[in-house]
Amino acid sequence: MMLLEPLAINSMTIANRVLVPAMVTRLSGEDGFVNRGIIDRYVRYAQGHVGLIVVEAMAIHGSKSGPLLRISDAAYVPGHRELANRVHDAGPSKIVPQVIHFMKVARSGWRQTIDTLAPADIDAIIDQFGAAAGRAREAGYDGVELHSAHAYTLSSFLSRQNKRRDEYDGRTLEGRLRMFGKVMTRVRRMVGADFPIGVRFLAEEAIKDGYGLPDARLIALRMAQMGVDYISLSVGGKFEDAIHRPGQPLYPYTGYSGDRCMPGDWYPPLPHAHLAAGIKEYVNAKGYDVPIVSVGKISDPTEAERLIVEGKADIVGMARQLLADPDWVRKVEEGRPEKVIRCIYCNVCKQLDENFKLVTCFLWPKGAIQAPVEDVAGEGPRWPAGGAKLAAKIEDGVIRLSWRPAEGNAISGYDVYRAEDDGRASVVEAVKGVKFSDRVVLGGLEYTYHVMAYDAAGRHSPPSNSVPVAMPMPDFAPPSAPKATSHA
Amino acid sequence: MMLLEPLAINSMTIANRVLVPAMVTRLSGEDGFVNRGIIDRYVRYAQGHVGLIVVEAMAIHGSKSGPLLRISDAAYVPGHRELANRVHDAGPSKIVPQVIHFMKVARSGWRQTIDTLAPADIDAIIDQFGAAAGRAREAGYDGVELHSAHAYTLSSFLSRQNKRRDEYDGRTLEGRLRMFGKVMTRVRRMVGADFPIGVRFLAEEAIKDGYGLPDARLIALRMAQMGVDYISLSVGGKFEDAIHRPGQPLYPYTGYSGDRCMPGDWYPPLPHAHLAAGIKEYVNAKGYDVPIVSVGKISDPTEAERLIVEGKADIVGMARQLLADPDWVRKVEEGRPEKVIRCIYCNVCKQLDENFKLVTCFLWPKGAIQAPVEDVAGEGPRWPAGGAKLAAKIEDGVIRLSWRPAEGNAISGYDVYRAEDDGRASVVEAVKGVKFSDRVVLGGLEYTYHVMAYDAAGRHSPPSNSVPVAMPMPDFAPPSAPKATSHA
Repeated sequence: MMLLEPLAINSMTIANRVLVPAMVTRLSGEDGFVNRGIIDRYVRYAQGHVGLIVVEAMAIHGSKSGPLLRISDAAYVPGHRELANRVHDAGPSKIVPQVIHFMKVARSGWRQTIDTLAPADIDAIIDQFGAAAGRAREAGYDGVELHSAHAYTLSSFLSRQNKRRDEYDGRTLEGRLRMFGKVMTRVRRMVGADFPIGVRFLAEEAIKDGYGLPDARLIALRMAQMGVDYISLSVGGKFEDAIHRPGQPLYPYTGYSGDRCMPGDWYPPLPHAHLAAGIKEYVNAKGYDVPIVSVGKISDPTEAERLIVEGKADIVGMARQLLADPDWVRKVEEGRPEKVIRCIYCNVCKQLDENFKLVTCFLWPKGAIQAPVEDVAGEGPRWPAGGAKLAAKIEDGVIRLSWRPAEGNAISGYDVYRAEDDGRASVVEAVKGVKFSDRVVLGGLEYTYHVMAYDAAGRHSPPSNSVPVAMPMPDFAPPSAPKATSHA
Repeated sequence: MMLLEPLAINSMTIANRVLVPAMVTRLSGEDGFVNRGIIDRYVRYAQGHVGLIVVEAMAIHGSKSGPLLRISDAAYVPGHRELANRVHDAGPSKIVPQVIHFMKVARSGWRQTIDTLAPADIDAIIDQFGAAAGRAREAGYDGVELHSAHAYTLSSFLSRQNKRRDEYDGRTLEGRLRMFGKVMTRVRRMVGADFPIGVRFLAEEAIKDGYGLPDARLIALRMAQMGVDYISLSVGGKFEDAIHRPGQPLYPYTGYSGDRCMPGDWYPPLPHAHLAAGIKEYVNAKGYDVPIVSVGKISDPTEAERLIVEGKADIVGMARQLLADPDWVRKVEEGRPEKVIRCIYCNVCKQLDENFKLVTCFLWPKGAIQAPVEDVAGEGPRWPAGGAKLAAKIEDGVIRLSWRPAEGNAISGYDVYRAEDDGRASVVEAVKGVKFSDRVVLGGLEYTYHVMAYDAAGRHSPPSNSVPVAMPMPDFAPPSAPKATSHA
């Protein structure tokens, strides 16, 4: 598989084309130091052979915030060095920190915007990025990623909503790019030519009067011109459409752009792959081969491989999927992709973050704060004598399923599989209990369900019995739905 | 060209695969009757050989509103009959009215939602749709289109934001589909099996927790099951993210979903074509061949043809492009596609609508309330002796162009063409004066500009001189931008 082939990124070679993007964990304390929980989280990805691990955003400045990693002072370096060492000891993964500058937000809903920054403030931010990148190198990280996405400072300069009217003028593309250019220049000077510098930025702002692919292609080209070593794309996650909850600081993933940033189960798979493809095609055509990272509801190994083979991306980024199962790469390497615990995009992780709680995965065993380690040796869940007795009934447009509890140690939950008509079965939901109501089903179609239990070690039971359900047409419809007559 | 081949839609055969979707005109009075301005607007599309003309949304009920066509009473039928006759007399076009039910909105920002409708209210709406469709047939229209898109009543039932908890339950797909099913059943009963019934609905709501392609495929399938004769897609245009302007009723195209409904010049061409393609593929696979209309920033005849040839759509819908130039089809038929006045997606038409003004096109001659009629015989604009003297200067990330005024009768404006590096020149802007500032340009690229003047009859001057402009890299960047080293 091309997905499992190595890729050189400046002086660093990653073992495969899989990247885990920066994800908030809320595992760190307010002190900003690397702690045990943080190390465990990232070592787990290394055990799973993730090619490139991007550590959650860490502040380059001293601005107040809740629990958040920091790299704003030399005092933080030893913790980062331990994290980098521990990850390197655990496997072939490379590890880079994502460094962030953000503006102030208040519980009143007020937020500082970049047009209030004086020239000296801007110079200070450029200094802070440079110094942070220097510390990243000193700590033994394999590179550094500049956070230029979502609702944060560098992204706000790139935005079509940038209200500055000086040399960083939001009305011109070059004005919007100027801050990134200065930061990149400084960071390169601090870390040297051979140290990989990646960037994350938005392929689409997904807000009113925000930018989309046409601007994103040019922004990516400038990043390539400036010698950026990889470009990781995201979408949305802006303050402009965030919903203010009284007494809480504004959180940039609460509006529609937040939906688009972490598309939930009602989105199609790979809703953003065309953006990476469009950017890659453009940048390559201009003679640059900077690797492009595609992201957004990628979880199927076949689909991930196809992105690489078809030249739509150089690297596949998976956040929620690798949170759910950090062993994704290892299982694919070992030829057992069917053992991957597939993310169901329930966004419980997103809700935990939104509520300022420790970010875990709904699919993990109850109470776990890290992904369980697979136990391939032990015996997995099994159905009781007489089988799962999966049964279905139809009620007001809902298919209600129920089944018997599986037996075994530490049953964590059940994957519900559904096939539509003659289609392929895939997971529609994972539940903790022994029932499930499917509400997005259409009369006139036949659905076939089965369930599989899984335990804390990620082992699955055999499939339950299969249950076919023919959804009836509603009462007002013709008794048998007519196939269309020929129109052409 | 497949685009120019006829297509049977139930008993109606359209002469080509081009449709003009319903567009607000604000040409009608508050009385709701068809008037001279309305007739002129739609006859103009017929003169241009548009295959299927969809008349702007007309109310099926008596609810108060500003200027809006109505079909809520027999008294309106004679006006509609005249409109249908006049269009039929003018050319081969078919014409259908879009019939709409909407809920109340107030200047305070309050709006009525569908969960407040009592069973009797729902029955009344179903009656009103049936009666309106009957009147459409009586008036001599070729079919009827049910408005089930944007912020209006039928769309609100289909929405994931439907808050009803009865048989129209917003939590189940069948609940969300029930109202449409009842309306469709009634309308079919009123108009008979042979009268074409089209529907417009949203392929993507483009709001927080709104639906996208996965639900849209199932909604379209239900429409096919119910015997809908064509499906016209749109995106967004919802109240949920609308911006309330004090003293104005809420207008559903003011938020991000409004941007997506009428994507402006900063969007890529065809941003929504994948949605029609995804829906068509799914519905066809289920054995239905109901024609699917793709819409959204389509203006290039080659791209339009490709949508049909590649099976991504059956019909191409163009609203703003056909407003700009109703003769698009005729010019393509006559083998002179380069004479099409290309929409620049400046959205002046959208702003006029937003401000409750008469909707015209910025590209039309000043003061015109209908698209000008092409005069192929007369002489077009010409450059003065010595030529256009197009010149460019670069200033703070902006390329500023200026040129000499063209000569001739009734010069309407100038198309500014730009090519990037070795790429093809295309229109980036149309302006009324003799200067233009291009603000979305990137250092390191070479741009080549030329301009062409056009007059009130749509005739163009020869191209001006071409001006190449090499945009410099900003001062902080390396003196010559490095092409990337090999990464692989």
